[in-house]
Amino acid sequence: MEGNESLEEVRVELGENSYSIIIGNDILSGLGAALKELPIGEKIMVVTNPTVQELYGDITIRSLENAGFQVVMGIVPDGEQYKSMASAQALYDTAFAAGLDRKSAVLALGGGVIGDLAGFVAATYMRGVPFVQVPTTLLAQVDSSVGGKVAVNHPKGKNIIGSFYQPKLVYADINTLRTLDERQFRAGMAEVIKYGVIWDAGFFSYLEENLHKIKGMQNETLVKIVRRSCEIKAHVVEQDEKESGIRAILNYGHTFGHAIEALTNYSVFVHGEAVAIGMVTANRLAQRIGLLSQADLDRIGLLIAKTGLPVDCGNINKQAMLRKMYFDKKVQSGRIKYILPEKIGRVRITDAVDESDVLAVL
Amino acid sequence: MEGNESLEEVRVELGENSYSIIIGNDILSGLGAALKELPIGEKIMVVTNPTVQELYGDITIRSLENAGFQVVMGIVPDGEQYKSMASAQALYDTAFAAGLDRKSAVLALGGGVIGDLAGFVAATYMRGVPFVQVPTTLLAQVDSSVGGKVAVNHPKGKNIIGSFYQPKLVYADINTLRTLDERQFRAGMAEVIKYGVIWDAGFFSYLEENLHKIKGMQNETLVKIVRRSCEIKAHVVEQDEKESGIRAILNYGHTFGHAIEALTNYSVFVHGEAVAIGMVTANRLAQRIGLLSQADLDRIGLLIAKTGLPVDCGNINKQAMLRKMYFDKKVQSGRIKYILPEKIGRVRITDAVDESDVLAVL
Repeated sequence: MEGNESLEEVRVELGENSYSIIIGNDILSGLGAALKELPIGEKIMVVTNPTVQELYGDITIRSLENAGFQVVMGIVPDGEQYKSMASAQALYDTAFAAGLDRKSAVLALGGGVIGDLAGFVAATYMRGVPFVQVPTTLLAQVDSSVGGKVAVNHPKGKNIIGSFYQPKLVYADINTLRTLDERQFRAGMAEVIKYGVIWDAGFFSYLEENLHKIKGMQNETLVKIVRRSCEIKAHVVEQDEKESGIRAILNYGHTFGHAIEALTNYSVFVHGEAVAIGMVTANRLAQRIGLLSQADLDRIGLLIAKTGLPVDCGNINKQAMLRKMYFDKKVQSGRIKYILPEKIGRVRITDAVDESDVLAVL
Repeated sequence: MEGNESLEEVRVELGENSYSIIIGNDILSGLGAALKELPIGEKIMVVTNPTVQELYGDITIRSLENAGFQVVMGIVPDGEQYKSMASAQALYDTAFAAGLDRKSAVLALGGGVIGDLAGFVAATYMRGVPFVQVPTTLLAQVDSSVGGKVAVNHPKGKNIIGSFYQPKLVYADINTLRTLDERQFRAGMAEVIKYGVIWDAGFFSYLEENLHKIKGMQNETLVKIVRRSCEIKAHVVEQDEKESGIRAILNYGHTFGHAIEALTNYSVFVHGEAVAIGMVTANRLAQRIGLLSQADLDRIGLLIAKTGLPVDCGNINKQAMLRKMYFDKKVQSGRIKYILPEKIGRVRITDAVDESDVLAVL
């Protein structure tokens, strides 16, 4: 593939659903060649939005066509509100009109919204067709493109309609991060920091020591953090594809984060910012009930703050927040599961938390 | 379970997606107890239509409530046109309003339309919740409730939106067949005869010899034909859950059948009738190209006719029929796969058929 020396591969081993994550700098022109290795037909529907199409549409289409694929574009307007069943229906129509069959692929070119939506369409068009993720945001590269969670939103809640559907390939070009606005880049960093806290103290230290290189968008550092994040996510997902157990640790910061997003009508914080605040909140809860040391609490908070992410959400109605948390998809039989760090590099899943302690840290 | 002596169990072995099919006469009151064996939460959404609710709603709800479940009803109007995304959306709303979580079950009480729709909702609500099939038609008991195909229709084609999603339990009470109208019962018989032709010459002979008992709705005979049909379907599905190979043999009679249904706007023949005509057409094609003997062709045709099923569809536009066949979901890279019998009990999957031979037998 163009002899690019920094091309890296992470395998996600899930039996017959196994796949590779390819990571590199400036590798988009090699996408078509990489897809030729997969058992897919000649037609590909590229799902993207106008912003990403403007930036990376031409190079993507050219790469696919040069490799002999017929490309059909499925353009969805920008924005989370288009991660909807209505958008899915429009894509089914496009796919059907273009004659896509069971071997045809659906390719997501974009961030999390595009990936989740295109994945849902791939999972449900003709009972499932091959799916390829080409994530162009940091959040998508380190989190949403890996692990097979696909969904659309329901008027009553995010990601209520979806399934687990693994891609055949994830192809992450870190060069696309250069066109990402800074706020979105920092939001993706919240998930990167999350991996350090839940799994790998060494990686957390690496992030502390190399934050300036990350902010400076240095190639090898970006490839390294995307790669290590994907490896950790792969390890976790391999053990628990459908989130019946350990996979829940990936939701560290998310139980609080989702509630914060919902309470502020998704208009104040982007997802990664809410997760950053959620991590800090979870840490304070963990420290309060004697799980986490003050030193680790401070270290995590400092890295989050230095990254430029928010660490609190100002005034919030505590009772309303608690109610929102009970509406999370992860709530089962009325118990909230908290993902709380014991130290940097290790978290615990527990529902043995007093509401009074939760209210105290909100 | 109520000490019913004719209770039979067929296992479908699909690794972590394995499940049992329970078959018996007058066993609906034992449903709740059977569900207590499964790892599901306390809430169950029963999806059904007004006709089935009238007949079996009370006994089902009572059985579930007696076993300690909380029941939420999801009523969908009668008819194939309600196997739609709009119906799915209404069911998502009902599920969400009733507080169904990831452990709650969706239970299909009805025929193929209800099973396919409820299964699609179960597969996609919160990325998949436990699904239970309680099929009340012969077609659903011997075919659509087993094997995990779930779907809704798209304006452009049937079952275009769907997935493979296995139930946790199939619970078939043959007593419900007594309230089925005769035409629907005969239509289900088309699928039963199909199993004999594609897999089991002995079962085909059994059907020939016991047709009067079947028509007389004799308990043990009904249990036997439902059981053997489920066993054969289970064998096939176990080898090829997602229909990448041998599972296609279950489509014997369906390539032609689907096209006949579509060409007649789904208003002349019910599915099983179209499949019956499709089997006869496939047989004639097989005989014409030297695969099937005239004697077996005649035997299959005779059993189909004696069952009271149609064997031809009158005048039909051959070219239009061929075009419809190319629109089938199973078509890949523009080749139609035909499922053709070599003798009673064995079929072959082939795309090596001249269009002239197909046109000759239409």
